Amino acid sequence: MITTTQNKQIKQIIKLKKSARERRKQELFLVEGIRMFTEIPEEYLYKVYASEDFYNEHRVIFEHMDVELVSPQVMKEISDTMTPQGVLALVKMMKYSLEDLLEQEKPLFLVLENLQDPGNLGTILRTGEGAGINGVIMSHDTVDIYNPKVTRSTMGSIFRVPFVYVDDLLEVAETMKQKNIITYAAHLNGTDYTKEDYQKGTAFFIGNEGNGLTDKLTDKVQKKIKIPMCGKVESLNAAMASGLLVYEARRQRQGVD
Amino acid sequence: MITTTQNKQIKQIIKLKKSARERRKQELFLVEGIRMFTEIPEEYLYKVYASEDFYNEHRVIFEHMDVELVSPQVMKEISDTMTPQGVLALVKMMKYSLEDLLEQEKPLFLVLENLQDPGNLGTILRTGEGAGINGVIMSHDTVDIYNPKVTRSTMGSIFRVPFVYVDDLLEVAETMKQKNIITYAAHLNGTDYTKEDYQKGTAFFIGNEGNGLTDKLTDKVQKKIKIPMCGKVESLNAAMASGLLVYEARRQRQGVD
Repeated sequence: MITTTQNKQIKQIIKLKKSARERRKQELFLVEGIRMFTEIPEEYLYKVYASEDFYNEHRVIFEHMDVELVSPQVMKEISDTMTPQGVLALVKMMKYSLEDLLEQEKPLFLVLENLQDPGNLGTILRTGEGAGINGVIMSHDTVDIYNPKVTRSTMGSIFRVPFVYVDDLLEVAETMKQKNIITYAAHLNGTDYTKEDYQKGTAFFIGNEGNGLTDKLTDKVQKKIKIPMCGKVESLNAAMASGLLVYEARRQRQGVD
Repeated sequence: MITTTQNKQIKQIIKLKKSARERRKQELFLVEGIRMFTEIPEEYLYKVYASEDFYNEHRVIFEHMDVELVSPQVMKEISDTMTPQGVLALVKMMKYSLEDLLEQEKPLFLVLENLQDPGNLGTILRTGEGAGINGVIMSHDTVDIYNPKVTRSTMGSIFRVPFVYVDDLLEVAETMKQKNIITYAAHLNGTDYTKEDYQKGTAFFIGNEGNGLTDKLTDKVQKKIKIPMCGKVESLNAAMASGLLVYEARRQRQGVD
């Protein structure tokens, strides 16, 4: 059992928890808690850590696995939560290619520019999976999807919804146009979002929480839509807006294939 | 200028920040930050506190107001945020009656049972206002709407969307039936939510984040609906589900009146 945070592995995990750069370097990220742990696809599982109590209580989920036991104190240090559940895994990063994503037939995408809130990104993946999206495409300055707060709030969707980070969303918008994927941006002067037809290839562009989409990207995107708002509401939360758009697409698409 | 947290007013504010019971007793709650401050309806404003720097920078918003200046240290103690913006107000609680709410013509309601997450409740008010709901009705064990985390995440909707806490949601469901308001509960065996007609009086019942609606209340509600989910998603976030439902109602109602 590992009982000290001076242990080399433990030091590595703490780095992985804190630093997106370290995660990218090692191509590993952390997954915590029993619910998320049981959702990890076998081929991505790299290493498992558990507290002794947790291990003894949940032996069945660890069958045929090497599990490294750690003391409660060490678990607390490596965990990103206040009250760790007692299991934490190192997981290999998924690799998706933009080319493969864009090759799908009549796909439904969310494209995120510089989103910063981990909870928003997690909710977007979870809701996106629910609505049946084919992938999430993000600008490089978007919050790291492997941030423990994001992975946790995806409730497992991170293992199932394909995603890529790209250098240039303008280029993505251009490529989509060539592939007959219609690009949409939320805009105050847009059409009511329920009046457009999303049964063809569709990509919704969502901007940063505070500033919205940059003008450059808004200009590049083919169609402007708006979510009508009553009262004095000026904007909706980015995750909520994303959810409304993809579920409207789902409503239109159901029973059509 | 108040420079010590031993000041009687400051002690009172700290109590109001921390305790729902204290807020109910004094019938006051806290509102922070310039954005929310400027949204407070005049008749509800009770008392204003500002740091000297903030006051000097924003004199125009304080016209005809008595403002109590506090030191930066005191502001930090009374604020609920890590980096206070420099203005905080005591605000009188709004009073709405369930009877008045239910008297409206073809209303659209969200009914919340034991919701616990402050961010969810705030987002529900904000999105609900956007969709044009007529009110939010909550069980008494729902998180306190005057909790600083809730009021902040409403982005001002707390001042505009009517709400009431009630002792018995079963009774509310019964009264709604008598008033021809159709009651809906999310349920795994329900109809696709986009296939129902929400152009009459409509109330969506939303359950606790972890447990959903209680069986008792589910049984009492007239119709079961479900938000279809692709992939392995078992449920959506409570605020997201609420948003999808009220915006579907809005879609159906637009241009109908």
